Amino acid sequence: MSPFNLHPDRLFPADPGTRAIARALYEQVANLPIISPHGHTDPAWFADDQPWSNPTELLLAPDHYLFRMLYSQGIDLDALGVPRRGGVQPDTDPRAAWRLFASHWKLFRGTPSSMWLSHVLSSVFGIMIALDETSADHVFDLIGDALATPAFRPRALFERFNIELLATTEGAADDLAHHKAIRASGWKGNVVTTYRPDSVIDPEHDSFARDIERFAALTGENVESWQGYLCAHRRRRADFRAMGATATDHGFATAQTANLSLRACEALFAKVMGGRADAEEAELFRAQMLTEMARMSLVDGMTMQIHPGATRNHNARLFASHGRDKGADIPRRTDYVEALRPMLDLVGNERDLKIILFTLDETSYTRELAPLAGHYPCLKLGPAWWFHDSPEGMRRFREMTTETAGFYNGVGFNDDTRAFLSIPARHDVARRIDCGFLARLVAEQRIADWEAAELAEELTVGLVRKAYGLEAPVREAQAA
Amino acid sequence: MSPFNLHPDRLFPADPGTRAIARALYEQVANLPIISPHGHTDPAWFADDQPWSNPTELLLAPDHYLFRMLYSQGIDLDALGVPRRGGVQPDTDPRAAWRLFASHWKLFRGTPSSMWLSHVLSSVFGIMIALDETSADHVFDLIGDALATPAFRPRALFERFNIELLATTEGAADDLAHHKAIRASGWKGNVVTTYRPDSVIDPEHDSFARDIERFAALTGENVESWQGYLCAHRRRRADFRAMGATATDHGFATAQTANLSLRACEALFAKVMGGRADAEEAELFRAQMLTEMARMSLVDGMTMQIHPGATRNHNARLFASHGRDKGADIPRRTDYVEALRPMLDLVGNERDLKIILFTLDETSYTRELAPLAGHYPCLKLGPAWWFHDSPEGMRRFREMTTETAGFYNGVGFNDDTRAFLSIPARHDVARRIDCGFLARLVAEQRIADWEAAELAEELTVGLVRKAYGLEAPVREAQAA
Amino acid sequence: MSPFNLHPDRLFPADPGTRAIARALYEQVANLPIISPHGHTDPAWFADDQPWSNPTELLLAPDHYLFRMLYSQGIDLDALGVPRRGGVQPDTDPRAAWRLFASHWKLFRGTPSSMWLSHVLSSVFGIMIALDETSADHVFDLIGDALATPAFRPRALFERFNIELLATTEGAADDLAHHKAIRASGWKGNVVTTYRPDSVIDPEHDSFARDIERFAALTGENVESWQGYLCAHRRRRADFRAMGATATDHGFATAQTANLSLRACEALFAKVMGGRADAEEAELFRAQMLTEMARMSLVDGMTMQIHPGATRNHNARLFASHGRDKGADIPRRTDYVEALRPMLDLVGNERDLKIILFTLDETSYTRELAPLAGHYPCLKLGPAWWFHDSPEGMRRFREMTTETAGFYNGVGFNDDTRAFLSIPARHDVARRIDCGFLARLVAEQRIADWEAAELAEELTVGLVRKAYGLEAPVREAQAA
Repeated sequence: MSPFNLHPDRLFPADPGTRAIARALYEQVANLPIISPHGHTDPAWFADDQPWSNPTELLLAPDHYLFRMLYSQGIDLDALGVPRRGGVQPDTDPRAAWRLFASHWKLFRGTPSSMWLSHVLSSVFGIMIALDETSADHVFDLIGDALATPAFRPRALFERFNIELLATTEGAADDLAHHKAIRASGWKGNVVTTYRPDSVIDPEHDSFARDIERFAALTGENVESWQGYLCAHRRRRADFRAMGATATDHGFATAQTANLSLRACEALFAKVMGGRADAEEAELFRAQMLTEMARMSLVDGMTMQIHPGATRNHNARLFASHGRDKGADIPRRTDYVEALRPMLDLVGNERDLKIILFTLDETSYTRELAPLAGHYPCLKLGPAWWFHDSPEGMRRFREMTTETAGFYNGVGFNDDTRAFLSIPARHDVARRIDCGFLARLVAEQRIADWEAAELAEELTVGLVRKAYGLEAPVREAQAA
Repeated sequence: MSPFNLHPDRLFPADPGTRAIARALYEQVANLPIISPHGHTDPAWFADDQPWSNPTELLLAPDHYLFRMLYSQGIDLDALGVPRRGGVQPDTDPRAAWRLFASHWKLFRGTPSSMWLSHVLSSVFGIMIALDETSADHVFDLIGDALATPAFRPRALFERFNIELLATTEGAADDLAHHKAIRASGWKGNVVTTYRPDSVIDPEHDSFARDIERFAALTGENVESWQGYLCAHRRRRADFRAMGATATDHGFATAQTANLSLRACEALFAKVMGGRADAEEAELFRAQMLTEMARMSLVDGMTMQIHPGATRNHNARLFASHGRDKGADIPRRTDYVEALRPMLDLVGNERDLKIILFTLDETSYTRELAPLAGHYPCLKLGPAWWFHDSPEGMRRFREMTTETAGFYNGVGFNDDTRAFLSIPARHDVARRIDCGFLARLVAEQRIADWEAAELAEELTVGLVRKAYGLEAPVREAQAA
Repeated sequence: MSPFNLHPDRLFPADPGTRAIARALYEQVANLPIISPHGHTDPAWFADDQPWSNPTELLLAPDHYLFRMLYSQGIDLDALGVPRRGGVQPDTDPRAAWRLFASHWKLFRGTPSSMWLSHVLSSVFGIMIALDETSADHVFDLIGDALATPAFRPRALFERFNIELLATTEGAADDLAHHKAIRASGWKGNVVTTYRPDSVIDPEHDSFARDIERFAALTGENVESWQGYLCAHRRRRADFRAMGATATDHGFATAQTANLSLRACEALFAKVMGGRADAEEAELFRAQMLTEMARMSLVDGMTMQIHPGATRNHNARLFASHGRDKGADIPRRTDYVEALRPMLDLVGNERDLKIILFTLDETSYTRELAPLAGHYPCLKLGPAWWFHDSPEGMRRFREMTTETAGFYNGVGFNDDTRAFLSIPARHDVARRIDCGFLARLVAEQRIADWEAAELAEELTVGLVRKAYGLEAPVREAQAA
């Protein structure tokens, strides 16, 4: 087995002068609390505070970054313990799955997964050994032993990670039971929800019919009428706000918006609910609903997040056998300039509205997103996302957006993860890359060192608090 | 108040070895004259040589780079003294506007605006204090006092800036009175015009009808007939050449060209003049006119500039209240390969024709523009433009075009600005970035140091003179 | 005449620490054999082993990278000795053409052509003089003298270059006579062919009718029936495999695939063979045939290469006078996500199939290709291609694909060249850039030094052997 250590200067620029500046900046922000306003951890973990079972179920089987790469090299998902459609667990020995993973660890060289998992093993579990086929069992046992101890239960790690706020994401048909349980438990960890109504908005979503029914049941509204349907959204947004939500999230294939007349909305809605909407009408309905969500945000103050651009479930065979979120979501060319226009015509000049735009299409950074966010008061730039949540991806994001949109139209970092244990690693990578970028600006005398220091703190905590309404008044509102 | 100094090594690469090479290259070109073949300064300044009034009216209110960023952060344009539609001046105290701007100066960290304005304050006005809320009044007064002195009048600054040539841009309906006045005044400053006929070519331009009328009046041609309309263009091109113009400029949303038969041109033109052209026909007319302009350039030798790719006036509400050029122009995906084909089929192989292509869509650099300019004799690559006229933008331009198109299919730098005082700053940024790029090629042993020295001079003055026909023969033609 | 030397550290990053790492990595791979699995050299050279005539015919006239740049600056192709349509040689003195080229050598500053040719002059011919107008004749004579000696015949150079394998590319209508002659000669140089059936698949190819006839004659199949046509492909693939081929290659304008029913295939094929297919049907036929090729690869194990994205012969006038491959092929926007879906639905999950994707549209690296290759077992990423086979292009490729697809979904380097003498130069540039990229990852502590060393060897020889089936079993198959 070979030793492994996280290098204290990892991810900083190689030039010694720039590196020294980066290191100094990083030291100022390294220990700031983690604010995670957008993620996909399971609130049940914090409600129940049960120990996790084993490294495979915790770290490998739910992480589509890991198993998609292994799959791309011909490794069977069953052999990795990845659940099949409907959550059916394959009959795989977790230790055998872990060994298979460890023996292919080299596939991740140069990827963010490698940095994140190394950080988890080293900083969270204190394992100073490189993962490979020779160490697989030893690492499996070390992690397994740790997970059985109280210090590795979800709440204990939450506290150890110095998390100021963690947002999960729930659908509009979710009863928020786990969030209620967290609150009822008296535990002080600040876990909040996020309103993600995709499955009751997208007529092509595979849970649409089922979730509309639950949506009706949860709200008591007549969701068969356009006005009742909108009221149901308003009610659920209030439910979510009561569970700490300050934001909504919308993830359709495109960023298309629309602003139809009331009569057109009613007619379209009737088609959608009657199951008679074709693909174009389904798209128009999603487009109209983005505008409706913006309108509701104007009233209730929730920050709106738009995450477009993924072609979901591209691999038909894998979708049939394993269902959603199995690493087969592929980005697509995404237009913002014409797509957002109907919504921006209505709310673009609102100063108190916050709409955060994300992209999987990096060509939109300089061409569309930075110019839009550098002009419209309501628009903010989400950080480098998903495939771009990586050292090179974050550098490109900063290089391609800062000159046009500045730093202050950004919103800080999102970890966007289901992998709770990797949250400190992900924030650490972002802090290091941001400090490295700022250091280069200082080294090239484009900003002063004291400006870089202010900016490092803004990028780490200031801008995220502002963008997600996490400053004092909102906290009081939550307390109320 | 904090001190501020421009660092002599600003914008050079941080690696000490590369930086030393960059510095040496820069020293050779830092003091070469400024040639500004494409810009938007007001010729009235040089015709009348009146003092500018105050920093707000000179530096802030006309600069859409500045006020769009402030607007994006919720600041009202009225409060910044930005004129409303029709030039109506808001009732704003210029000093109050300046204070508001100064107190938000941090928004520009990492943007070219910050570098440009710092350079103006420091090099043009000798102000060695950082701009912020504490220094706002002091800086306002220092600038105001300076502007009242003869040394800060337009012509004095023109001479101090060591400008060899400054091109302004006038529409086809402009009487060129200011340019005539400059020439009549006996002042030796080389201010020339550029022929920009957009408003008499684009049927969807909001001044089309009015400007066509003036166009007719100024030329005495029957612009209701296709041949008369073309003759009117030829006459105006000659008028512009008499005022020093060596170039035309065309800024439509797309780069579409067409090459219709005479009969089809006449029919299309009749529709356009009859106000019956639909959107598609308007596009076709603009497309045909680009080809007509190329044909005329073949005869009169004027360099043709194509600046496509902006979705103008994206913010409908702001356009209604404040009109054009208020920071709400957003780039769009731009095709060149198919769009230019009709024109290139006609004139692409002409060696004496010069067509300069610009883009707001950086994806076209490697995919379309460099391959096109690296093949067609008539095509040249315009520099990194608008949102990309920035350190990172210029680096990407060099990195993405040089390997395919070389340096010699470029045209040097364009400042493209209304902000006269920032012209030295903008050329200085370009020279520094170019020297930094060349220095990297030397440091990586990709070109020799003496080649880099030759190239630094070509990028600064040589290529621009060649591209815009500013070498000896053309100057004689102007004198004649 | 000025001296010229290849610098031993050329192309390595400038930062001294990173450079030292890059140099150490490079030393490990610099002398590994050249494996060239995709190229366009003429097999007749190795069959006949005749001396080349002169530098113009060898180095200038066939190299579209060189003459397109000269043409873009107004230099006539005739004056460079470039053959006209049908291979008609212009009446140009090769020495005069060489002088003209040499006097414009500065046009190539900063381009890969400059690095490649400098390497050829210096390393292949031992010429330590910079090319320019003063040295043109001397260099011409030195090269000419060398070419007349046995050491500069094709086979001698092949051996001197330490080429382990060289793949050429032949059409489906080629009789492979040169490859047979190579084998019959007893020479041990490993020259293999590649199956490129474009001209019998693309109904819009200008040799389609002629090549279909030859295709029928060579196979004895009834190519007028769909089944016969497919059988003919199978036969020819076997013929090519007998001449060492392990791969097929497909270069259409788009990456579109299709998966029609048998009946629809037969109907479409009938239209195509009857000359009645319109543009859309021609595209559909090419799309269907990509899927058919994948299906055949499943059976015979040949690696499939898809090279889409070029708008061929963009310059109509030049195409009329000079024919194909004259530097006027311009990249176009290329979609992979929807285009490949029909084929991937059928074979995407096959582990033993290898489909290598190339692109001329760099926007697809992060958005489409890396996510696709990072998921589908059958997909691999071809290296930076054509306009992107350059230091900056290769860096962007690594930076934009590695974090999502890793290193192991790549296939090593392709030189893709007709310019045999430049093959060592091209592989050397790729090795240097790859080592520089790995060195940066080491310097930023993103991978360990021993991982970088393993990767450097994988990128140079390991991955290419695996991707093109050049490991032991396949060689045995060839021997059988």
